[in-house]
Amino acid sequence: MSWKAIVSRKRHERDQLIAPYVVEHMNRPPQVHNVQERSQIEAEPRIQKITDIDNIMVLLKQIEKGETGAEEVTRAYIKRSVVAQQLTNCLTEILFEDALEQARQLDLEWKETGRLKGPLHGIPITLKDQFNVKGVDTTIGYVGRSFAPATEDAALVQMLKSMGAIIIAKTNLPQSIMWAETENPLWGLTTNPCNPEFSPGGSTGGEGTLLALHGSLVGFGTDIGGSIRIPSATLGLYGFKPSSARLPYQGVPVSTEGQEHVPSSIGPLARDLSSICYISRLIASNQPWNLDPKCVPLPWNEEAFQEIQDRKMIIGLILDDGVVRVHPPITRALQELSALLEANGHEVMIWDTSLHASCIEIMDLFYSADGCEDIRRDIDAGGEPMIPHVEALVNRSKAVSVYEYWQLNKRKIAAQKMYLDQWNAIRSHSGRPVDVLLSPTLPHTTVPHRMMRWVGYTKIWNLLDYPAVTLPVNRVQAGDIAPEYVPRNALDEWNWNLYNPEQVEGYPVNLQVIGKKLHEEKALGAATVIENLWKGRTGSICD
Amino acid sequence: MSWKAIVSRKRHERDQLIAPYVVEHMNRPPQVHNVQERSQIEAEPRIQKITDIDNIMVLLKQIEKGETGAEEVTRAYIKRSVVAQQLTNCLTEILFEDALEQARQLDLEWKETGRLKGPLHGIPITLKDQFNVKGVDTTIGYVGRSFAPATEDAALVQMLKSMGAIIIAKTNLPQSIMWAETENPLWGLTTNPCNPEFSPGGSTGGEGTLLALHGSLVGFGTDIGGSIRIPSATLGLYGFKPSSARLPYQGVPVSTEGQEHVPSSIGPLARDLSSICYISRLIASNQPWNLDPKCVPLPWNEEAFQEIQDRKMIIGLILDDGVVRVHPPITRALQELSALLEANGHEVMIWDTSLHASCIEIMDLFYSADGCEDIRRDIDAGGEPMIPHVEALVNRSKAVSVYEYWQLNKRKIAAQKMYLDQWNAIRSHSGRPVDVLLSPTLPHTTVPHRMMRWVGYTKIWNLLDYPAVTLPVNRVQAGDIAPEYVPRNALDEWNWNLYNPEQVEGYPVNLQVIGKKLHEEKALGAATVIENLWKGRTGSICD
Repeated sequence: MSWKAIVSRKRHERDQLIAPYVVEHMNRPPQVHNVQERSQIEAEPRIQKITDIDNIMVLLKQIEKGETGAEEVTRAYIKRSVVAQQLTNCLTEILFEDALEQARQLDLEWKETGRLKGPLHGIPITLKDQFNVKGVDTTIGYVGRSFAPATEDAALVQMLKSMGAIIIAKTNLPQSIMWAETENPLWGLTTNPCNPEFSPGGSTGGEGTLLALHGSLVGFGTDIGGSIRIPSATLGLYGFKPSSARLPYQGVPVSTEGQEHVPSSIGPLARDLSSICYISRLIASNQPWNLDPKCVPLPWNEEAFQEIQDRKMIIGLILDDGVVRVHPPITRALQELSALLEANGHEVMIWDTSLHASCIEIMDLFYSADGCEDIRRDIDAGGEPMIPHVEALVNRSKAVSVYEYWQLNKRKIAAQKMYLDQWNAIRSHSGRPVDVLLSPTLPHTTVPHRMMRWVGYTKIWNLLDYPAVTLPVNRVQAGDIAPEYVPRNALDEWNWNLYNPEQVEGYPVNLQVIGKKLHEEKALGAATVIENLWKGRTGSICD
Repeated sequence: MSWKAIVSRKRHERDQLIAPYVVEHMNRPPQVHNVQERSQIEAEPRIQKITDIDNIMVLLKQIEKGETGAEEVTRAYIKRSVVAQQLTNCLTEILFEDALEQARQLDLEWKETGRLKGPLHGIPITLKDQFNVKGVDTTIGYVGRSFAPATEDAALVQMLKSMGAIIIAKTNLPQSIMWAETENPLWGLTTNPCNPEFSPGGSTGGEGTLLALHGSLVGFGTDIGGSIRIPSATLGLYGFKPSSARLPYQGVPVSTEGQEHVPSSIGPLARDLSSICYISRLIASNQPWNLDPKCVPLPWNEEAFQEIQDRKMIIGLILDDGVVRVHPPITRALQELSALLEANGHEVMIWDTSLHASCIEIMDLFYSADGCEDIRRDIDAGGEPMIPHVEALVNRSKAVSVYEYWQLNKRKIAAQKMYLDQWNAIRSHSGRPVDVLLSPTLPHTTVPHRMMRWVGYTKIWNLLDYPAVTLPVNRVQAGDIAPEYVPRNALDEWNWNLYNPEQVEGYPVNLQVIGKKLHEEKALGAATVIENLWKGRTGSICD
């Protein structure tokens, strides 16, 4: 079968599964700031109400009380996810009928026992099309992986299902996964729900888009350079990349699989930080190391999560990584937040980023150390064309020898050691060590399609394998004027030229909170402090 | 300088540092079973008494009470280590004068404060010549690394010194490290203290020999295929290989450095299991993750260490790995120990080893995935000849591409997953999961030089990254007759033909206790149970 015939058949199958839920003659405003308005289902107020909930625990409580049931919740999310699909092309594999069947089973059990099946009873969850779900494809955006359904659920999927979660769909990602936007020849382009001319970011872009449009409550993605955090930041969501050995990657096929020196992590995305904390705690608490040999037996440390919330923090502030200067609204957001933190007794110190450029130089060599043979083989298997980013990556990559690869890894370990020593050596004015770092997520807010270039603010935490959570803290304002600035290099110039405050006014600004390796609890706890402080000041996180 | 000139100069420097302590006209029996008899210093009863102590805590208590002091202890161990050197050629770098200076400083502090500097105050420790000690070479057995002193102490050395330990010397290892015996052109051959015609095992063979002869109290080695456990087993010592992310490897140069998919671990060797537990707990408790970015922040779990000692255990018993059958005394030791465990209420189940051969096939490809370029470069740098084992390894190795290397790593992860699933699936008769495995360490006891071939019983735990402790439990007996047996393959035949009960009668038989990844406490706790049970039965571990 030609690649186009496969594409056609895959899309047709998807569309048939969606068809019963499609809203005909959908008339929605093409550009809005509060994106959920685009996916509203006003004719059905119960659906609207259920899918407006952002917090897992709130929905769970309603199910527990019998105010709604798993089937109704699932049906509501299916409906709104289809609206999201119609608007942005975010869905790939459709699991609606299975999801409804499982939901009915949950409802029955609940009626019989009066008890929830588990801590995710009836919670609708979606997954980047990388997590194996038994019976459906895991294409990871490659035509050649079509019609090869997974024979087993990924470890994460097993855990989620055993806790009562309902997987309703899988979502789009870019060809090769190694790209911060969301496009592939198999499923096409996913657009930013705020504006179809803009990218939702990537690689977990389908997931981000769906969540922003309330087509899911919690999503899971993967992140080897920012792929969870970039769409989250672009869309004003919460996204969490843990250290790679914390949550289970087992059963999650990936591009350049086997390359583990710059490790990929799985992690959640949501519209609510409590939901991120809730589900991260759940997975970490349920011995993922029994399902995935790469996980370390480090149970969730609730004490560490709380301790950081009960005292004044020491925060290292990253304003500039020395390579690409961030756009004015991001600098303003960092400064406003720092001032607020200091006003509340926390200590904020400027963080030295002089190691960043060399870290990023090292890690870029890892991604394509095979001369992109892995990517080329997948593309050749399907016969589809390369998207421009992948073509450029393949063309500039040169395979190294295994010996050179080992030398590269020695450089990586040396860089990790230098960064760790830097962190440990620094003391605040009051003589205390730094708890977490506060940083931009991206050097810009949302950008037009195919304009992403610099993801150094996210990817460095993959090289170091530090946990990083991105959260929305602000919006672009009309007054965020760019100062006179002479860029340092071509990338910096590219980024600076991208800034157009009128185009992005009102769009979300996300920041990142970073902890030391395998200190997920501390990073999430600190993010919670920051969120509460910011929300307390403004009433709402983004206003 | 020619390689021979470098060798001559290095050995001359060593010998000059040793000279003040050399025992002239040393007349010792060449072959004995209780090897410490060969290194006795009868003329100096206090030295004899101090160096006869096997247990860190016993010595520490004597120092604390003022019954001896750090300088006397150091001097005693220096003297006996020189006897060991004269008998077996086990030492490389000599740190005697620095050690004495530090010891005098400790004694002064103790006199002033009445307090110990730390939990290793005055404890003499030696290190495989792989750990960086500031100011002396780390040759790792290569001529070309001579006269390039380390500029910093390894993370472990920093920790040990800060706790008051005295590093007195570094010890021999094989060229390339990737070999289970101890020989290199720089320092020569290290011999088994029981019999100079036999190997002490390797690669931490100098350390093992020195400990067996009471020339050190605790040693540290590295282990990527059995290098801590093989000399321990050969010499009737205790040796512990933790999971690789537990104790700090930072500052420990290694052959094939940068290859981390089959990870090397550091770990202790000693004549006493309590000493192993004591020092492992100390290092794990003192946040090694702040010195080494590869370490996971997993504090020592005393509860897990105790819990396994307070109940009946479920033990998986490995009698045969399906590739190379073990010699009769080892089978007998396993059977006797199993019977004793069962008689004491523990459950023992035969463990299925059908995954072992494929695991070992995978890992052998990792060691030489660079076509041995790493080893060749080091040898070329010095110009010395290859020892036969290294020559054979280099000749049979072929470099693979990075893409193939990634595929190999995928196979490794799949193998790790299968092994984990097997462990998790099994239940004992009473319905409980397996706590630890009990296994041979080697398929033979000590063997003549250059006869080591099969280390599959140790190396599989490196591929799986499981903690493994080897302990002496028995000795070869005259009645350990080989049954009729048709070997399965050439390796099996080689090993079976090595068995000569008359030659090895009275030599120690060590077994291995293995835990799940990063469950060091459970493995050490279970070994403690087994040791106490066995000692309780026999009065002494090896009689």
